[in-house]
Amino acid sequence: MSGELELLKWIRARLGRRSRRILVDSGDDAAVLRIGRASVLFKVDSVIESVHFTARDPLEKVGFKALARPLSDIAAMGGIPLAALSAVALRRGMSLADAKRLVRGMERLEVPVVGGDVSAHEGPLVLSVSVLGEMRGVRPVLRRGARNGDLLLVTGPLGGSRRGRHLVFPPRLREGRLFATRLRVHAMIDISDGLARDLGHLCQASGVGADLEEASIPVSPGATLHEALHAGEDYELLVAADARTARRIEREGAAVAIGRFRAGRGIRLVGRDGASRSIEPRGYEHRFGS
Amino acid sequence: MSGELELLKWIRARLGRRSRRILVDSGDDAAVLRIGRASVLFKVDSVIESVHFTARDPLEKVGFKALARPLSDIAAMGGIPLAALSAVALRRGMSLADAKRLVRGMERLEVPVVGGDVSAHEGPLVLSVSVLGEMRGVRPVLRRGARNGDLLLVTGPLGGSRRGRHLVFPPRLREGRLFATRLRVHAMIDISDGLARDLGHLCQASGVGADLEEASIPVSPGATLHEALHAGEDYELLVAADARTARRIEREGAAVAIGRFRAGRGIRLVGRDGASRSIEPRGYEHRFGS
Repeated sequence: MSGELELLKWIRARLGRRSRRILVDSGDDAAVLRIGRASVLFKVDSVIESVHFTARDPLEKVGFKALARPLSDIAAMGGIPLAALSAVALRRGMSLADAKRLVRGMERLEVPVVGGDVSAHEGPLVLSVSVLGEMRGVRPVLRRGARNGDLLLVTGPLGGSRRGRHLVFPPRLREGRLFATRLRVHAMIDISDGLARDLGHLCQASGVGADLEEASIPVSPGATLHEALHAGEDYELLVAADARTARRIEREGAAVAIGRFRAGRGIRLVGRDGASRSIEPRGYEHRFGS
Repeated sequence: MSGELELLKWIRARLGRRSRRILVDSGDDAAVLRIGRASVLFKVDSVIESVHFTARDPLEKVGFKALARPLSDIAAMGGIPLAALSAVALRRGMSLADAKRLVRGMERLEVPVVGGDVSAHEGPLVLSVSVLGEMRGVRPVLRRGARNGDLLLVTGPLGGSRRGRHLVFPPRLREGRLFATRLRVHAMIDISDGLARDLGHLCQASGVGADLEEASIPVSPGATLHEALHAGEDYELLVAADARTARRIEREGAAVAIGRFRAGRGIRLVGRDGASRSIEPRGYEHRFGS
């Protein structure tokens, strides 16, 4: 059984750093390219019927989600989105009106869709959206950079994806930009695969471990702690910041502290009774193969 | 019955020119964005099993085609490709080895793939590839710009797509760059939908008509004139240039003249006997709806 991460790792290893123009490759939330004096962000994400949404979900929401996902990655670098492209494989029999519903959903995010590719086929609805963004003079915030002693913060409640939030979440662009500019953080990632798994990515990239405080984790109404830790598709930002910056972030209401980075490896959950246990950085990964 | 072009036109009309950063939108081969002082090209294209390739085609070739198609659009603007992103929906049961075959096919084009998105689903294989390119100090060559009296040239033989060329064509990046720099042309498009249809796009954007000389059109070995005119997926460049530039282009072997632009509307085919007839700008368009 092999998965998406193994494939992306293999591609990365073959790519090497073949061009000095590639400042950050596929190992972070978005690639960063140097064009002239600008740092340009470049990201793609797909949504697939029966994988990321159901055939019963309103098409406006499907279009919204398709663009909101890569925008969440632009947010997680601290960037500003510039433009998007959509590639759509429509289910045979879908109408022009259906295609327009997808576009209307994207338009709610106010990022110009400057091109696209539309086909009809004998298969499920597939939308891939690519986004270009820019840093405008500030450095992109990477996954690596969290330090021993930094606080861990999150921009909103977790675990609500199975109750429909995965179709309506607002990408945290304002917060991400704030964390790259005025309230500068050390590291950032968006939570797509689940708190435990994405925190695992942040820790691995930074060479640190982390303790999560159960009592501090904001859990979506109706969700369980387990869902907040592992369900994924929250699209909140997870950031590492020194204690002083973290206090300012909390004061401004942009995120709440939910734990602390420490030396070593692994993620521990500190319960309400003070007892701590290791948690696996598991969550969602696309698997394929035989 | 509604089609891709109607949808893209609708999207364009809604988009307007909402941002001064969008120099060219979806109405040309690629979008052009201003980032800092750079003109950045941005394009997506998809290939879908049973639409753009068959389940029997080698996966290396499928990967190659998926990246070569948007590269052909970068070529048609005169740009230099910088990086690509691929979004892949694998057929359930495809292995990691299959996914690697797709990537190896892309690698043959020597454009770094800096990220991607991989899922498995209960449907046909779908690959969408987005490409970023840059103009490096020269202006992008648009579809509009052909003038009454300009010669029409093409970079290679047409009509071979049904004999497998659509899986192995080389994107005309070197030629496209030449046409944007030293041998400056007035207008350019790549032939994806067929000579007649893409020439129609060029004429419409430029407000001119064109006469094609049947005897000059390079037809692929084994193909018919009808295929050369309408089959599509040639991915050769079609350019408009003044007579002097056209002679230089022919002398350097970069393209051959196949006709001439004229005032008015429509496309005429001038036969070997000198008689001319109108031809419809038809070719391939994805249609959907009921």
